[in-house]
Amino acid sequence: MVKALILIADGTEEMEFTITYDTLVRAGIECTSAFIPRGLSPYGSSDTSPPLAVCSRKVKILPDVTLNPLDAGPEKYDALVIPGGMGGAVTMAGSTEVQNLVHSYYNHTEKRIIGMICAGSKVAITAKLPGQPITSHPSVQSEFPDHFDYKEQNVVVSDAVPGKATLVTSRGPGTAFPFAFTLIELLCGKEKRDEVVGPMIFPSGTVTGYPF
Amino acid sequence: MVKALILIADGTEEMEFTITYDTLVRAGIECTSAFIPRGLSPYGSSDTSPPLAVCSRKVKILPDVTLNPLDAGPEKYDALVIPGGMGGAVTMAGSTEVQNLVHSYYNHTEKRIIGMICAGSKVAITAKLPGQPITSHPSVQSEFPDHFDYKEQNVVVSDAVPGKATLVTSRGPGTAFPFAFTLIELLCGKEKRDEVVGPMIFPSGTVTGYPF
Repeated sequence: MVKALILIADGTEEMEFTITYDTLVRAGIECTSAFIPRGLSPYGSSDTSPPLAVCSRKVKILPDVTLNPLDAGPEKYDALVIPGGMGGAVTMAGSTEVQNLVHSYYNHTEKRIIGMICAGSKVAITAKLPGQPITSHPSVQSEFPDHFDYKEQNVVVSDAVPGKATLVTSRGPGTAFPFAFTLIELLCGKEKRDEVVGPMIFPSGTVTGYPF
Repeated sequence: MVKALILIADGTEEMEFTITYDTLVRAGIECTSAFIPRGLSPYGSSDTSPPLAVCSRKVKILPDVTLNPLDAGPEKYDALVIPGGMGGAVTMAGSTEVQNLVHSYYNHTEKRIIGMICAGSKVAITAKLPGQPITSHPSVQSEFPDHFDYKEQNVVVSDAVPGKATLVTSRGPGTAFPFAFTLIELLCGKEKRDEVVGPMIFPSGTVTGYPF
């Protein structure tokens, strides 16, 4: 069974998180959400027990687990997904555990997929991924060093570095469906993607194949 | 301040709930989510305390309140929203409290808005709303009695009965953004709608004005 680990923190964009999680589940992917405590981030610490993520527009989501780096690696999951929402993305980008996790997926001997959407793409900077095609929410575009090839595309799929993970990046809540369907196409194939699209009843012409 | 009450139950479609809640908050609308216990529905009862909604694809959302009919009426909120997800919609459609709530909004002396999406439109049947243009997820289309004017449109806005609430219905997760933007346009005007659309970064051509 294909498995995905989806990170969540206080301030995560609840639509980007929920659209990805739900749509991947519809494709038969086993999703696990892992809470990233705020620790020493500038957004302070208010961790509850069990951890409850208070998202960017105050939807309160109970994550499946709190991140345990020993049980969250690429030997267990096929994909790692990092949603946006500035508060959550700052926490994740500043977390050594998340940076190390991204490294382990990026460099795994078997090819893995790393998805980042909206401000979540900030983690590509702090984890010091090599330069490659990338996108993000426009509000954080200026933070990307010149060695990244910044694209204003809805979804960017990068296989720039041979033998490393595929990096899938996207822009915001409005591109979250194309982002999720790209992950499904890469993890489960185009046929599964088409099977999931149907019952979701998209307005005609709004969901087409990658590149979106 | 414009206020909306959004219902949630075990089995609610988490994307339809979250997209509506989050997008309305972005428009400055004060949103309150109210949990509908399963009671005697065929889906059984497993209410937790505080109530936690286990949604259709197992995203776990903590509602803001449990429904208190005495504090949920149209004198307090401008709009009532009923999301889909078959399990949640069956609970809501079978709830006398929800049926009465829909009646109070529908017949309020000041015009209110009632939004129903996907299987959530089943509540229009059990609450015995008068015949008018309506839509829903295709999987429940056959349940609508003949006096409804069923439309295969992404969003249907009905003001069919003078002096009653405006009924806004929609089809599924894929039409949840147009559904939310229609609610915003009716509650806050077209200018506010356009202001909210921008930063969400939709692929060009996928979000246009009503009718979608």
